[in-house]
Amino acid sequence: MEAKIYAESLAKKAKSTVRKLSSLKTDIKNKVLLKTAELLIAYKDKIIEENKKDLADAEKKGYSKALLDRLALDDKRINQMVQVLKDVESLPDPVGEIISMWTRPNGLKVGQMRVPLGVILIIYEARPNVTIEAASLCIKSSNAVILKGGSETINSNRILVDIIKEASRECGFPEDAVMFVDSTDKEVVTELLKLDNLIDVVIPRGGENLIRAVAENSRIPVIKHYKGVCNLYIDDEADMEKALNIAYNAKVQRPSVCNAIENLVVHKDIAKEFLPKIGYYYKKAGVEMRCDEISYQILKDHPLTNDAKIIPAKEEDYYEEFLDLIIAIKVVNNIDEAIEFIEKYGSHHSDAIVTENYTKGMKFINEVDSAAVYINASTRFTDGNEFGLGAEMGISTDKIHARGPMGLKELTIPKFIVFGNGQLRENVGIPKEEEEINIDTEACKL
Amino acid sequence: MEAKIYAESLAKKAKSTVRKLSSLKTDIKNKVLLKTAELLIAYKDKIIEENKKDLADAEKKGYSKALLDRLALDDKRINQMVQVLKDVESLPDPVGEIISMWTRPNGLKVGQMRVPLGVILIIYEARPNVTIEAASLCIKSSNAVILKGGSETINSNRILVDIIKEASRECGFPEDAVMFVDSTDKEVVTELLKLDNLIDVVIPRGGENLIRAVAENSRIPVIKHYKGVCNLYIDDEADMEKALNIAYNAKVQRPSVCNAIENLVVHKDIAKEFLPKIGYYYKKAGVEMRCDEISYQILKDHPLTNDAKIIPAKEEDYYEEFLDLIIAIKVVNNIDEAIEFIEKYGSHHSDAIVTENYTKGMKFINEVDSAAVYINASTRFTDGNEFGLGAEMGISTDKIHARGPMGLKELTIPKFIVFGNGQLRENVGIPKEEEEINIDTEACKL
Repeated sequence: MEAKIYAESLAKKAKSTVRKLSSLKTDIKNKVLLKTAELLIAYKDKIIEENKKDLADAEKKGYSKALLDRLALDDKRINQMVQVLKDVESLPDPVGEIISMWTRPNGLKVGQMRVPLGVILIIYEARPNVTIEAASLCIKSSNAVILKGGSETINSNRILVDIIKEASRECGFPEDAVMFVDSTDKEVVTELLKLDNLIDVVIPRGGENLIRAVAENSRIPVIKHYKGVCNLYIDDEADMEKALNIAYNAKVQRPSVCNAIENLVVHKDIAKEFLPKIGYYYKKAGVEMRCDEISYQILKDHPLTNDAKIIPAKEEDYYEEFLDLIIAIKVVNNIDEAIEFIEKYGSHHSDAIVTENYTKGMKFINEVDSAAVYINASTRFTDGNEFGLGAEMGISTDKIHARGPMGLKELTIPKFIVFGNGQLRENVGIPKEEEEINIDTEACKL
Repeated sequence: MEAKIYAESLAKKAKSTVRKLSSLKTDIKNKVLLKTAELLIAYKDKIIEENKKDLADAEKKGYSKALLDRLALDDKRINQMVQVLKDVESLPDPVGEIISMWTRPNGLKVGQMRVPLGVILIIYEARPNVTIEAASLCIKSSNAVILKGGSETINSNRILVDIIKEASRECGFPEDAVMFVDSTDKEVVTELLKLDNLIDVVIPRGGENLIRAVAENSRIPVIKHYKGVCNLYIDDEADMEKALNIAYNAKVQRPSVCNAIENLVVHKDIAKEFLPKIGYYYKKAGVEMRCDEISYQILKDHPLTNDAKIIPAKEEDYYEEFLDLIIAIKVVNNIDEAIEFIEKYGSHHSDAIVTENYTKGMKFINEVDSAAVYINASTRFTDGNEFGLGAEMGISTDKIHARGPMGLKELTIPKFIVFGNGQLRENVGIPKEEEEINIDTEACKL
């Protein structure tokens, strides 16, 4: 019951700012972003102090070193947050943009204008810098936001939100536009997900289990991606050096993220040359290779890949998001088989082809049904900042609203605006023969 | 069990066409549309014959005259369908449109290209012409569609889909891209709504109960509008003639539709002049007026509105979609109260202001949070065809993906396309010192 009351109070406060936000000047939004950046530096020591509480708690709970690293804030990471705020400040304001406007034969001017989504609930895990990223994008796009971070970063997140609120007060920006779920009670989230009259969209960021739980329990529309099973296809007409570098970068540079590749799909005519070479570098980097029959034969006893971790792949390996130094390998007869493989096993996140052949490159771009499709580049670029969107609110692998990294534009939606000068449907107005009564104001006796 | 098997077979067939559709030439899509138009005329008698079966069944079941009228097909209505097909044929193909493309500092070219949503399930009632409207929009936007019409029009819908399939075969268009639920078993819909791996989006069109049932039972994202509680605000600086005509048109011209107004909001300084006049015309048209205290005082014993149906409004009247010759009236002190009223009681569908004041007009456009916001025109124009979109798949009052009438563009979604020449994240490629091994193909012993 308490959770319900708390959830409603958060959502109501956020909702109460929506109308004010919709007509807020860009100036004020930019000021809040820069003021927050300034305060982050001024309060650096306090932030690190609060963060240490989270780290101590996490250590007590025996969290992994990797998680502790993601939690930790230091000078460098605080400076990165400052940079995000400055980047978002410098981006154009998407709100009020008239995407297009046209005149109908009856003279009506009909147009589409970008407006904020309204109230956004973001549910995320671990890294406290997501707090700043999400808040800055919402501030700039005039959305109210309810931030629900992981319980393991509650102290860090609280002080970051306090700083945003202090900046808001100083700049005349509605303080309640950024709400913080200051509770680790899971019931609060359950209650928030019921408030479809107060919250317009939910964006979960985190592991697949978190996202599935949100999607299944929410009455509010959810924009999400469950997982990133990204694929790289090496065509027989690939440039060997590009192929090796991209296959290496997309798997090895940071294997724990959703835009790293999990499947390497190789054309049979280049497999005998390409696979031992990439196998050699994968071996050096400690990558385990799970191979179909042909690639297993090529790699198993090859001098370049002896001592490498090479094992036969099972069907289910191709569906899996390893998030680790593991790759599943498949040899195909042609590009159509590659595209079918990606359609079947991929998660429609990011997929790339390496080829010098123009027609096959364009075929891949057109036919692969994913949020981001690449020719001759690493899938690791699927990221709001790398794409030039400034920051990202999340990545969508849904088919509606937005696909791929969601930046400012994706946090708005066009509404129709119509300028008339008295247009009537089918020209049906007040009956003409009665006009004398219409203008006879004496008869009104007022 | 049978319903489940049938639902899956429909969805699988539709899904199987998705890849082919994604790269289909505009020419072929246009040919199918024109061929269908041709066949509609050729088979006119057969269509009317099938429609008579539906009408006979409906009459037996004692359906209302209004419903029978919505069901009936005649020469004129078949010609309207032919016109829709020709209109959609003449619209530009949205698929493949590059909305924008930019170059990143590392040389990556990142762009956004419109692609189809995939498989769309549309669930609708009564009018058989929706079958042609929905199918033509999906064909042109390269979406596969599953059509679930009302059981009362199953014979009419079946022959219309048969005609589309005949046209598809003749033009080399994938026949299974337009699937028809040839069953009145409600279980089939229940099963379809579970298939989130095969169907990408559901669009329900019909009464609020139908839409709520779909939204609550669907695992697939739903784009919808529950109801149309549209509002008209007459400002104190309104032009009296425009105000009277628009208030008349928006209520009287066709009261049974979602974009007709249900609430009339009037500034206190114009109420004494405006209300008796519009009351006079409403009385003539048989409109019942449900009034707040002030408007009741003005209208009750006024000579222009004697014998009119004037009763005091209850709070719940302002929330109601009457879909009838009934209007709820509210007098306000200023434009802010009007906007607050609309925010509270409206359904974010279509709302209009009548004013000659520029600043108040722009304030209304910016601050009213609805799918379509008007100055000085009737809300009855919220319609795909009237807005110049050719036709509409439905109207959305959701806050994500699309707001207002959904035409061709709204049946697509941008995906990211990325053209590289070997770009690597953080420039991490295969280790340089090993290059000699990389190019030593002899060592590969292949």
